[in-house]
Order: sequence, then structure tokens, then C-alpha cells
Amino acid sequence: MYDSVQVPGFLGNGVAAGIKGGGDRDLSLIFSEVPARAVGVFTTNRFKAAPVVLDMERIKKGLAQAVIVNSGNANAATGKEGDEDAATMSRVISEALDIEDDLVLVASTGIIGEKLPIEKIVRSIKPLVEGLSTDGMPAVAKGIITTDRFLKIECRKCSVGGKEVTICGIAKGAGMIEPNMATMLSFIMTDADIEHACLSSVFKESAAKSFNAITVDGCMSTNDTAIMLANGVACNDLVTETSGNLVQFREALSGVMDSLAKSIVKDGEGATKLIEIVVEEARVVGDAKKIAYAIANSNLVKTAFFGEDPNWGRIISAAGSTGIPFSTDSLELYIEDVPLFINGRGISGKQAAGIMKPDNIRVLVRLGMGKEAFRVYTSDLSHEYVDINALYSS
Amino acid sequence: MYDSVQVPGFLGNGVAAGIKGGGDRDLSLIFSEVPARAVGVFTTNRFKAAPVVLDMERIKKGLAQAVIVNSGNANAATGKEGDEDAATMSRVISEALDIEDDLVLVASTGIIGEKLPIEKIVRSIKPLVEGLSTDGMPAVAKGIITTDRFLKIECRKCSVGGKEVTICGIAKGAGMIEPNMATMLSFIMTDADIEHACLSSVFKESAAKSFNAITVDGCMSTNDTAIMLANGVACNDLVTETSGNLVQFREALSGVMDSLAKSIVKDGEGATKLIEIVVEEARVVGDAKKIAYAIANSNLVKTAFFGEDPNWGRIISAAGSTGIPFSTDSLELYIEDVPLFINGRGISGKQAAGIMKPDNIRVLVRLGMGKEAFRVYTSDLSHEYVDINALYSS
Repeated sequence: MYDSVQVPGFLGNGVAAGIKGGGDRDLSLIFSEVPARAVGVFTTNRFKAAPVVLDMERIKKGLAQAVIVNSGNANAATGKEGDEDAATMSRVISEALDIEDDLVLVASTGIIGEKLPIEKIVRSIKPLVEGLSTDGMPAVAKGIITTDRFLKIECRKCSVGGKEVTICGIAKGAGMIEPNMATMLSFIMTDADIEHACLSSVFKESAAKSFNAITVDGCMSTNDTAIMLANGVACNDLVTETSGNLVQFREALSGVMDSLAKSIVKDGEGATKLIEIVVEEARVVGDAKKIAYAIANSNLVKTAFFGEDPNWGRIISAAGSTGIPFSTDSLELYIEDVPLFINGRGISGKQAAGIMKPDNIRVLVRLGMGKEAFRVYTSDLSHEYVDINALYSS
Repeated sequence: MYDSVQVPGFLGNGVAAGIKGGGDRDLSLIFSEVPARAVGVFTTNRFKAAPVVLDMERIKKGLAQAVIVNSGNANAATGKEGDEDAATMSRVISEALDIEDDLVLVASTGIIGEKLPIEKIVRSIKPLVEGLSTDGMPAVAKGIITTDRFLKIECRKCSVGGKEVTICGIAKGAGMIEPNMATMLSFIMTDADIEHACLSSVFKESAAKSFNAITVDGCMSTNDTAIMLANGVACNDLVTETSGNLVQFREALSGVMDSLAKSIVKDGEGATKLIEIVVEEARVVGDAKKIAYAIANSNLVKTAFFGEDPNWGRIISAAGSTGIPFSTDSLELYIEDVPLFINGRGISGKQAAGIMKPDNIRVLVRLGMGKEAFRVYTSDLSHEYVDINALYSS
């Protein structure tokens, strides 16, 4: 399936620079043959990794041509030296590609607080650039992962401005996944010619419903970065906010980003289930979101899902813990459409045995307070999560 | 050590009513020979268990003489029937003790959403009352636990109003432990004669620094209850806000409650370590508290402690995720007094190997923003937590 991961005008490669050790790919490059319009969303953590600080500044001008990404080291909490290392990553790749330095974006993921082994990156620039290829996106995807169990690549095609265009995204997830871009990296490429303001609005709208509506462990990272590049080589009529078929582009982009977001949760550290939490009938979206996340991040709820134990009391208890007012008599809880709590009292868990068995489970909470809703995806909490995270840095 | 758990004028007993099964004690009674001044703090969850609703109303008058407690069933999310069952628990014990019904307080803990097996409780009232004894507090403590691995009992003596008085507390913890009284029950008894307003203020002040400054899993329960009874049989001069030796009483009470709170965290489900998180130099206490809890509830931080992995980047990342402003250059992080992050950059985790080994670990974060501080106790996150919680209701 990865053979088809080609976006006109984009090349990619991923090599083993020795940062992670063990011969795994850990340094990736995305290169657009022409400067592309660029938009991004970044972690809101006070501690922003050096590459995040660099990108947030550079992306303001709205153009980029290359993205260099390493895994195995987050270059976060590394002080002035870290800033210099991020700048060096950019400079050496810009020289090798013969492009302006400020057309390079940088991303890092891995352990926090260790100095980036910049010399290993510098040494690997030559093979990284020499191996660039239109078929290189799977190698890019391999080079950006940390504890991920599978690659996350998603492509769609649609028609805009009289031409067929391609949208492909890759992502890296696994742990530290929470609202506001928690440890994840994602890079979305399209050959569509789309106005910058329009690209920015559809991308941010899609991010809010995908990357910012997932959680694995409620932990927000220092390095979260999602970047989209649109290089326009499809030569379609420029897409703007008023273009007739912007709706198709938006749908295709949402499809790519939703799918990547779900993959990140499915591959959450130790995850055995994908759980969709929908909160409906809230007074405002913020209430629905807060309750959805309270349920999605509750360790008691997540371990109950791992154990396939219909201990639904933990779900309503989590909903009740947020401080958001609702009537406990009008709240309704359904799992897989089976009503478990209605009219102020519950159905015995024993009667609900079996509903927790599927790999994909839908939880619906109706608050009876209004018309707003929010949906979040989460994973269960397993032994493997503890295993992976107990010894990550050792 | 439990032989000394006697408070003049208080009797206790705990019996096996068959709610939990397996012959374990699951129904407890505390009885004061005379009506006692009573104060309490309760869960702030929207879903309050039936006994919590009953107690919150009754405690307003400030007097109580008996507390009946069952484990194995929370009588929460049980609708009108649950309210009736809580009222029945009170009525049958008041009749057996020949006291006013509204001098009885009720507490329940266990599975949410299953009907309380009230007939088992009714059947056990006779042996429960007949077995009341001044030596009965350990039996009371046994009857209120769920997944606790050890009993939590704490006693202190101090002098107030010309007499020596005793303060003894028992508690039940284990899971669902979070700020604002998360699944825990605690009952504190004293023979001191203390004005109601004064009792209320010292109790709430101590609760804020003990039961409301601990977390195991960030989950707030439907049933949290901490009640204090002061029966005055010591016949000391009435303690008031202006009494000279209120300070000794406050200190003894804080000692009892702090110690119970720490025991709850040490016995957190699957806990292998007791971790003290201190956040200093905040602008306001609320900021310090929010950051302390963000660190204390981070699964990534908690699994790192379980693995004894000095992955301190997760700690500063959790601090940075709260949205509270501080300069990342002035934040300082110490574990066991070893500086790990100073002047905007970190010390390599490898140099810090070994500092995570102790069973009790102190984490200090200085924000450099002001003079306020907050301390919270938390536990690590282990395989056993997952084991216990994956199959709790099954």
C-alpha cells in the first residue's frame, strides 16, 4: 500500500543516523521541489523544544521547502545549546539542498533533556539528501517514529480547481498524546494550489477535530508539531475560501487527519482498544469537551476498558468530577448503544457483560443540558503502557 | 499497636454482613455514648452517593452520635431506591441503638451502580450493635476497607483546656484518590470538648493540607467522606478559637490527618513509592497546586517513578502543560535535593541514576515567580494498579 504514497513535487527519505541506535531509521527529510505554502500547529506547553520555537517563528512567513526530522532525541530542555543544534540541523540541510535556510522547518522527538547528538546528524546529511525519492515517504515515516508499533500514512485524492490533487500525511504518535497536540508529529503534503489563509483555516479546523481530539495518557508534550505543505504543482485554479469545491478539499484533508489521529490512538502505548467518547447535549462545546476528556483520561475508566469490565459507574463518576453543572437525573450513558444509566439510576454491570469485548467501543453521554457536542478518541490502559513507560530513558 | 486505639466515650465494631463476600468484615459502626459535635467534608462530584447526600444534610445541625459504614457497595447511582436504602441503614441502626434517627451518619464504599443489598445489612444490625466495644476500632477499620492492603489507624494525645485528650482517626483509601476527597473515607474521633465553629475550622484546614493534597489516580469519587466527631467526655475547658492551647490540638489533629493521608497514598492501588511533590515560588497558591497536581497525576511521570527511571523531562513537561505562565529559564527542578534542571537546561538523566531508588522521594519545583507553595503526595503507577482496576467489578 505504501507504493502509492506519492505527492507530485515532493521527495522524501529516512536514514539511520545512529541517534536511536540499533540501526533503525531516525533522521528523515521531506523536500518540495518548489517552495510550498506552509501552515502549522504546535504544542502549547510552556516548555517548547528548540525546533518548535524555531518553526513557530519561521512558519509566520507562510513558506517552506524542506522539513528535517529526527527521532530518538527531543532536543527539549536543552538550553542555548539546543537552540544552536536546531539551527545547525536547518543550516546543514539547507546547504546540502541549496535552498534558503529559512525555508527549512525542523522537528525532533524522543527523550527530553539530553543534548542532541548533532554530529551524528551532520554526518548523515549526505546520504539523507542523496537518497531523496518520490517513493521515499514510507522511509520518512519510519524515521520519525519512537515507540510506535506501526507506520501511520494516509492518502486521499480529490478534485479542486479543475484538477485532481493528492493529500498525503504521515504521523508519529504513541505516548504523551493529549489535547493541544500532545507528543505527536504529523506532516501533511498536498500538490494543491491553495491560498495561504484558506489553507490555514481548513488545516486548523481539521486539527481541532482530529489531532486535538485524541488522548492516550493526558500528557502534553514539549515537541508536538503538525505541519502542512501545499506546493501547488497540480496547477489547479487557486483554491480560496470562496472556491466552489473547497468542500471536497476540506473533506479529503479531514479524512487524512482523522485517520492519522485514530491511528495514533490505536497505537497508543500498550493500547488494546480504540474508544470513542461522545458527549452530547452540553450547553457549550467547552463543557462537552471537558467532560469527554475527563472520561477519556480517567485511569479507572481506561483500566476498566482494558479489563473489558463494564464498570460504568467510573464513567459517570468521571463526568461528575469536572465541576460542570448538570442534573444527575437527566444524564444518560450508553456503551455500544446499550443504555447503562438512565433516569438517575443504572443498569447492573452484570447485565452489560459482553459489551466491552469489541476492539472499537463507543461511549455516549447525554447531558440533557443543551445542544452542543464533542467527540474524543482514547485508548485503554494496559500492562504494556506501564512496561513501555517505566524504563523509557534507561 | 491497635490495642491502644481507644477514645473515651467511643465504641466501635465491624462485622461480616456478606456484602463483599468471602467472610470479610464489611459493616462497621462507630458509636459515641453521648451526642458529639460533628463536622465533615464530602466529595464535590456531581454524582454524590445516597449516603453522602444524607450526611451533607444531617451534618448541618452539627451533632451526631453514630456512624454506620458498609464496604463492598457504594450505593451510588442507585436512584430513589438508593436514597431509601441509605435512610433504612440509618433507621435500623438508630432503633437498635435507641437514639434519634437524625443523629446517625451513613457512609458506603465499593462498586458504583449496583443496588445496596440492604437486607444483608438489616440482618447484621444485631451482632453489629452487640459487639460494640471500646477496643472495637480495629474492627471498624477492617470493615470499611476495599482494596486496601493495610489498615489505616492513627492516634495522638495532647493537652487542651486543662485535660489530656485523645484524637484517633481511621481511613480507607486505595483507588480513586484525588483532590477534593477522592474515594476515601475517614472518621476522626476525639473526646475533647471543642466549640463547633472552632472544630469545623481546624478540621477543614487540616483536610485541605492532608486529604485534599493527595492523589493516586486523579479520579474523584462519588462517595468521599471525612467526618469528625468530638464528644467532649474529657470534660476539658471548652476549646474555642481564642483558647491558648488550640495550637496543640490543631497540631495533633494535623498529625493524625497527615499521617492517614500519607498512608492512603502509600497504599494507593499498586503503589511502590510515596512521592512528595513540592511546588515553590508560585505567584498564587492555586498556581502551585495546579502544577503540583499536573505532575502528580501524569501517567508518564508516575510510570517513570515505578521504573526508577530519572526521566525528569516528563516532570518539567507536565509543569509546562498547565497553561500557567512562568519562565522556563528560571524554573528549577530537584529530586532528592539533586538539581536536574537549572538555568534553562537539564542535567543528563544518566548522571542522576540512583536518585529514584528510595521508597520515599521528594520532588521540588521552584517556579521563580513568587512566594506561594503547595505540596501534594502521590504514588507511582505500576502493573498492579492495572491488575487491580482492570477487573474490579467482575
